[in-house]
Amino acid sequence: MTRAEPAGREFFTTRTVTQVLTGFRPGRRTSVETVPLAQALRRVPAGPVTAPHPLPGFTRSTVDGYAVRAADTYGVSEGLPGYLTVTGAVRMGAEPDVVVGPGGAVAMPTGGALPAGADAVVMIEYTAEAMPGTIEVVRPVAPGEGVVRADEDAAVGAQIIPGGRPLRPEDLGMLAAAGVTNVRVHARPVVTIFSTGDEVVPPETPNLKPGQVRDATAVALGALVADAGGTPVPGGIVPDDPGALEKALREALPVSDMIVISAGSSVGTRDETADVVARLGPPGIWCHGVAIKPGKPTLLAECGTDGGATGGVHGGADGTGPLVPVIGLPGNPRSALVVFRLIGVPLVRLIGGCTQPPPQACTRARLARNLASATGRLDVVQVRVREGVATPVFGPSALLSVLTAADGYVVIPEEATGLDEGAEVEVTLYR
Amino acid sequence: MTRAEPAGREFFTTRTVTQVLTGFRPGRRTSVETVPLAQALRRVPAGPVTAPHPLPGFTRSTVDGYAVRAADTYGVSEGLPGYLTVTGAVRMGAEPDVVVGPGGAVAMPTGGALPAGADAVVMIEYTAEAMPGTIEVVRPVAPGEGVVRADEDAAVGAQIIPGGRPLRPEDLGMLAAAGVTNVRVHARPVVTIFSTGDEVVPPETPNLKPGQVRDATAVALGALVADAGGTPVPGGIVPDDPGALEKALREALPVSDMIVISAGSSVGTRDETADVVARLGPPGIWCHGVAIKPGKPTLLAECGTDGGATGGVHGGADGTGPLVPVIGLPGNPRSALVVFRLIGVPLVRLIGGCTQPPPQACTRARLARNLASATGRLDVVQVRVREGVATPVFGPSALLSVLTAADGYVVIPEEATGLDEGAEVEVTLYR
Repeated sequence: MTRAEPAGREFFTTRTVTQVLTGFRPGRRTSVETVPLAQALRRVPAGPVTAPHPLPGFTRSTVDGYAVRAADTYGVSEGLPGYLTVTGAVRMGAEPDVVVGPGGAVAMPTGGALPAGADAVVMIEYTAEAMPGTIEVVRPVAPGEGVVRADEDAAVGAQIIPGGRPLRPEDLGMLAAAGVTNVRVHARPVVTIFSTGDEVVPPETPNLKPGQVRDATAVALGALVADAGGTPVPGGIVPDDPGALEKALREALPVSDMIVISAGSSVGTRDETADVVARLGPPGIWCHGVAIKPGKPTLLAECGTDGGATGGVHGGADGTGPLVPVIGLPGNPRSALVVFRLIGVPLVRLIGGCTQPPPQACTRARLARNLASATGRLDVVQVRVREGVATPVFGPSALLSVLTAADGYVVIPEEATGLDEGAEVEVTLYR
Repeated sequence: MTRAEPAGREFFTTRTVTQVLTGFRPGRRTSVETVPLAQALRRVPAGPVTAPHPLPGFTRSTVDGYAVRAADTYGVSEGLPGYLTVTGAVRMGAEPDVVVGPGGAVAMPTGGALPAGADAVVMIEYTAEAMPGTIEVVRPVAPGEGVVRADEDAAVGAQIIPGGRPLRPEDLGMLAAAGVTNVRVHARPVVTIFSTGDEVVPPETPNLKPGQVRDATAVALGALVADAGGTPVPGGIVPDDPGALEKALREALPVSDMIVISAGSSVGTRDETADVVARLGPPGIWCHGVAIKPGKPTLLAECGTDGGATGGVHGGADGTGPLVPVIGLPGNPRSALVVFRLIGVPLVRLIGGCTQPPPQACTRARLARNLASATGRLDVVQVRVREGVATPVFGPSALLSVLTAADGYVVIPEEATGLDEGAEVEVTLYR
């Protein structure tokens, strides 16, 4: 049996995952928008944020105690206390209305502003009331002790948040402290997700006819896109009809930062998808076939409806090119999701301006059995982890239950021919 | 100097973090609601979800090839091929309209439904067209080869998703495949967040007077609550006035699943917060003081406005008691956030029905210097991690910049007196 090969497709070589991750670097970046702080969690700052004022902005006590002149405490001890006259108290949130003179002390709450004249705060634990209006001090303090400087959390103009790192909860606190209540962030990449195949029906379909399957991939891909900071847009289910697919893709291109197609699972429909993507205009297909298991029939392309070449991996990227990366995923839901985690998620982050992706949850475990692999191919093996032992969960790539039963996956790198039972492996954990 | 101790407070012993995590287990759980699949990411299923139908529902080809009777291929080889008559083809998504009889073969796309009569699919790679309408087969197949069974992904009634584990992207795919487009999940715990202190002003405040600080804690706590699956509700800033705080807490109790107060940072205001919480009704304060650094002045309580005792750690929990857990956090933003990550986040998850919290990102690293600690106290040390070396980031607990500069933290456990330079430690990474 022979198949007619569409002209030119044989020139698209298979790439390794390493080649994909280092070589397929679309220049497209989303625009910059401003969001309020309360909605900024995990958003990606478009650049470093600097402190508009010094923080905390005043010399601030870090303990409950007394503001003093440090020199007045030099030499004091339990056996030979010093005596200071209490001339007032600082109230929280208020500017001090007292001054600390020689031999004087002012009661301080933690967080209060240091009054003029004082240069340190002695902790209450090292003081005692000797008589009304007089305290004894049993430990000396050095200048600067018991306080933070007015610019110790941040000097004016200092970077308080780096650009490109998704905002963490603690970052929001720092921004609030600095009075930065609106943050310039990259817009969420809009990722349009298509499912293709005459056999695919919407998940809502109550009863299937033999041969039909519900669209499992689209909702899961949408969740992975959201996790990566993108906005998933359901493109719907396109039948195995090149004309319909081309129409759908051409409509999606101008309104997408990235397009994902879970292509048909049979060779014929995969070829059709590649042919359609190739017609979408230069620069077109970057690779058709990735040395990964599962997931070999993966396609990567950059397309532009206007034929422009102002960005992308093919042209001289100016970082804002109109080209839209297109990923064609295998038809098997499980293969599609494995590939998208490894290759698609980093692309969504890249387009969304994320230069410091958040760390993934991992654990080290010992393999429960030998795993074979082929050199030059990256294998992704689903595993359960119990008490430090990683047990592979096997099953045909058509089975989704393998993914839901797994705690994570082990990668057998391209240079390895397999992993031995008992080998210590790194498991990337699902969350 | 002495301070009047409010009656009874001295009975609230300091607890260790281990005691808190194992002993303070509020019985409150959120109710169950139904959400559409597209909004179910990270939501917590209220119970296991089972397959309403077998999956995939029909015997499905996993390869491109020919549906055959396996017995017709026994004994064939490259040197001695078998010959089969092609009697038709299966279309994707359609019920087969052909039957495979003895000596027959039907062309199959990957994912197609196996026609009656066939019990295996031979891969196209092991066939060739001998003449129009006849193929030769050069490798035998066993029954069941090249297909997945009709119930191989899930038998009817089998659990496809466990209860209590936040839904992952791949879980949504499995649910979609099974036609489960609405999921019964625990409602998000409503967590009301108060900031207290006369010195605290809203983050929007453009210019501070000496002594004033912007509320950094509330927005960061809100983000941690959201991360843990809860809905943060800003309770606002309450001045250092016990009456105002009591009124605010009493109003929040009936509409909250949990209340968080970043208490004043000075001893006096901390005591006032404890007194107010104690007045909110039995069972009241569970501990005032946790052996953690930073974060010692942490308060844990359960409160109910109606005096009911149908749930909680104090009474016989029925799992739906009206008691509301209350956490009083230290006034220093950094201490508050450290404590909330360790103690507050697990409580939000518990109340929200999460029994399998997602794994945290961690890495192993070598300590760049000695770290001292006290036995019986858990220390949380912020670190930067570069090339496998964890370098502590020090600074007064008033400084938020320590948290934003850190990549994660090292826990020095209660039984340790410190960690040595060069020791291998586990760093929990921020994300």
